[in-house]
Amino acid sequence: MNHLSNHNKRSEDLYQQACKIIPGGVSRNTVFHKPYPHYAGTAKGCYVTDIDGVQRIDFANNMASLIHGHAHPAIVEGVTKQIQNGTAYTLATEAEVRLAQLLCGRTPTFEKIRFTNSGTEAVMAMIKASRAFTGKPKIAKAEGAYHGTYDFAEISQTASPDVWGDINKPNSVPLAHGTPQGVLNDVIIFPYNDIERTLAILDQQADQIACVLIDPVPHRVGMVPGAKDFIEAIYQWTRKNNTLMVFDEVITYRVTYSGAQENYPVKPDLTALGKIIGGGFPVGAFTGRADIMKVLDPSEKKLLFPHSGTFSANPVTMTAGRIAMELFDKEAVDKINALTQQAIQQIQEAIKIADVPVSITGAGSMFRVHLKATPPNTYREAYQTKEVKALLNEMLDYLFYEENLMMINTLACMFSTALSQKEIDILSNAFLNMFKRFKPQIEKIQ
Amino acid sequence: MNHLSNHNKRSEDLYQQACKIIPGGVSRNTVFHKPYPHYAGTAKGCYVTDIDGVQRIDFANNMASLIHGHAHPAIVEGVTKQIQNGTAYTLATEAEVRLAQLLCGRTPTFEKIRFTNSGTEAVMAMIKASRAFTGKPKIAKAEGAYHGTYDFAEISQTASPDVWGDINKPNSVPLAHGTPQGVLNDVIIFPYNDIERTLAILDQQADQIACVLIDPVPHRVGMVPGAKDFIEAIYQWTRKNNTLMVFDEVITYRVTYSGAQENYPVKPDLTALGKIIGGGFPVGAFTGRADIMKVLDPSEKKLLFPHSGTFSANPVTMTAGRIAMELFDKEAVDKINALTQQAIQQIQEAIKIADVPVSITGAGSMFRVHLKATPPNTYREAYQTKEVKALLNEMLDYLFYEENLMMINTLACMFSTALSQKEIDILSNAFLNMFKRFKPQIEKIQ
Repeated sequence: MNHLSNHNKRSEDLYQQACKIIPGGVSRNTVFHKPYPHYAGTAKGCYVTDIDGVQRIDFANNMASLIHGHAHPAIVEGVTKQIQNGTAYTLATEAEVRLAQLLCGRTPTFEKIRFTNSGTEAVMAMIKASRAFTGKPKIAKAEGAYHGTYDFAEISQTASPDVWGDINKPNSVPLAHGTPQGVLNDVIIFPYNDIERTLAILDQQADQIACVLIDPVPHRVGMVPGAKDFIEAIYQWTRKNNTLMVFDEVITYRVTYSGAQENYPVKPDLTALGKIIGGGFPVGAFTGRADIMKVLDPSEKKLLFPHSGTFSANPVTMTAGRIAMELFDKEAVDKINALTQQAIQQIQEAIKIADVPVSITGAGSMFRVHLKATPPNTYREAYQTKEVKALLNEMLDYLFYEENLMMINTLACMFSTALSQKEIDILSNAFLNMFKRFKPQIEKIQ
Repeated sequence: MNHLSNHNKRSEDLYQQACKIIPGGVSRNTVFHKPYPHYAGTAKGCYVTDIDGVQRIDFANNMASLIHGHAHPAIVEGVTKQIQNGTAYTLATEAEVRLAQLLCGRTPTFEKIRFTNSGTEAVMAMIKASRAFTGKPKIAKAEGAYHGTYDFAEISQTASPDVWGDINKPNSVPLAHGTPQGVLNDVIIFPYNDIERTLAILDQQADQIACVLIDPVPHRVGMVPGAKDFIEAIYQWTRKNNTLMVFDEVITYRVTYSGAQENYPVKPDLTALGKIIGGGFPVGAFTGRADIMKVLDPSEKKLLFPHSGTFSANPVTMTAGRIAMELFDKEAVDKINALTQQAIQQIQEAIKIADVPVSITGAGSMFRVHLKATPPNTYREAYQTKEVKALLNEMLDYLFYEENLMMINTLACMFSTALSQKEIDILSNAFLNMFKRFKPQIEKIQ
């Protein structure tokens, strides 16, 4: 492949410099790439041009955070105006009230809201709020689900067969070396979309669980939407056990106009947000029942959960987020979801034409391509062996270097409203080329 | 006071709207104010005008994060250019390499660096890196020290006399209700600037401690710089016990050209940064010994501490931060520190003229005013009773409404380079007026 030729010289040079001062040369492992990562130069809409002058179509959108692609004129204009008046003060701003009103007006369960600087901070604060409200110490989460980098939230995120243990009682597997045993003890792991086992596991420590943490379409578990009866069963269990059901919709809020929760007959007590609600700037939020959110109210006689943050609700993020979400109205949501459905159909056709054992999962404006004929339904089914990972990386490289397409490293796409049928045709054609080219390897790893 | 008159109507109205959707009506407790907080309109340099049209001089600078005050032209220009080319990509950027180079070139102990979105995330990651490197679970921190909102870092942040326990072995006091016992068990509390007791406490669990977390000038402990022999004694203890000494310089990095650590003959193994290094945008970073930071390197055979973040090292923050730190060169550091010294001197004179039992602590471009003749040396000495807090709030209101000055809610100032002798004269004169006016109350609470 031509990525080792001279035309990536600037990225390669910059990476050499980066390695001297940044561990592994990258500030985020998501952009790590061998033998070197590429450096963004300019971007507009659905196109990103790297510093070596290569333009690519962006289907990753900074890990699902740019719902309108890059440098949307209305966002650029709003932010440009805001920064001339300052970016942060030791005072409140109107911008935070406006974005809060917009979000609370959009989703029925969002009664009260607080902003943070990232999805990681949002999930952490949501867990702390759950503990403060219930007085209970533990949380339950799905094996394989990604919820940011707060220790309690990241347990068993990448559990592997040698350590994940009995499916009837999955082990709490640390992500980071040195994770305290106390953290492992306070996180209960259940298998996603497996009602019977999950309820049995929850039952065992029912009186200890502050909240059950659910991503309704967990990307790393396989991007399979939570089954309706699974979500409903957990919800009913939490009602009976004085436990909160909290949703991580940092990624999935894009799925419908009011989040993936709209697809279920349950009312999550709290919801964590991030990504698209910041319009391309650092953001997080957690929101939900007014009586629970009261733990954060500094005017209460006893403040159960003191919470602040130097840059939380800064007016730049709030302004960009408000504009982005105003533009992402019902019509825009319908349109992007229809375009995504169209893309999935075209890739399904490519799968058929190339006759490869490949499947697709997803919801709304996001989908993931699996190198197996039947889509996985659980984390353990979706788990990728070394061989599968190596093949995936080759395929991602093919798409990046030969087809000039950017994708998330699980072979997933997170669409933006900047995409049109033109780019979808390029995408499905690229997949067809790729399936044909890699067919022997794909068949081999089945 | 006139703050309840009609001229704050817009802030009051907006707060009524905010209360319907935000717990307590504020996104950050730091901006909470009774009967309502004020809303920023525009800001430039050291001046902030609220939406009711009142202009004030800013000595708080968004909790010490704006080293050049508001909307510095060079930062506005750089960011305006950047956002036209995008705010975040699923690729690396040159901007992150440049800020990393600048910071690593500035402080000798900064061998490798990683960026985060906040000081909270920086401290959390630094603690996780310490555990990953040492394989030990516990941390030790000073009673009363603020280190962000990660549970482990916030234990005993606001410990009060009824729960703080024996000074020879201070209790681990939760900040948030529902903090798991496991977290409390894994945090060891010591009294700042008390060598003998601190070493005795550390000795008790020497083999369990991953790191000793130190803010070299802990604001909430009293903003008294760590005594040289105290810092040196802890450092020597960590060398003997295979433990890391990690500095939280999120606030104190401004103190000298290369941080408050320059004032000590020790080399912290890791340092957390934030605030000023983002040029007014959400930021955090942790940095230090290359061999420790290797736990983050995704090219290592075994990645001990996987770490990512959607908005970490985004090019807007990196660009603003680089410009801000380039402008904050040695000359600028000397100048702002000299101006701060001048301000302290003038306030000391005001204290003498008004003949009030008031003292001042601080370092570099920050200081804190205490309502007692002798400055506190420990958290327990600095602890404010309800009465003291109530008087402080009255005084802060006086400065805010009558003198049109913004200050941090501990009666602390964090200077910006936008300030000049003119504003210092206004500040010291305002303090003099305030001391005269509140003299009876100040004397009463001694």
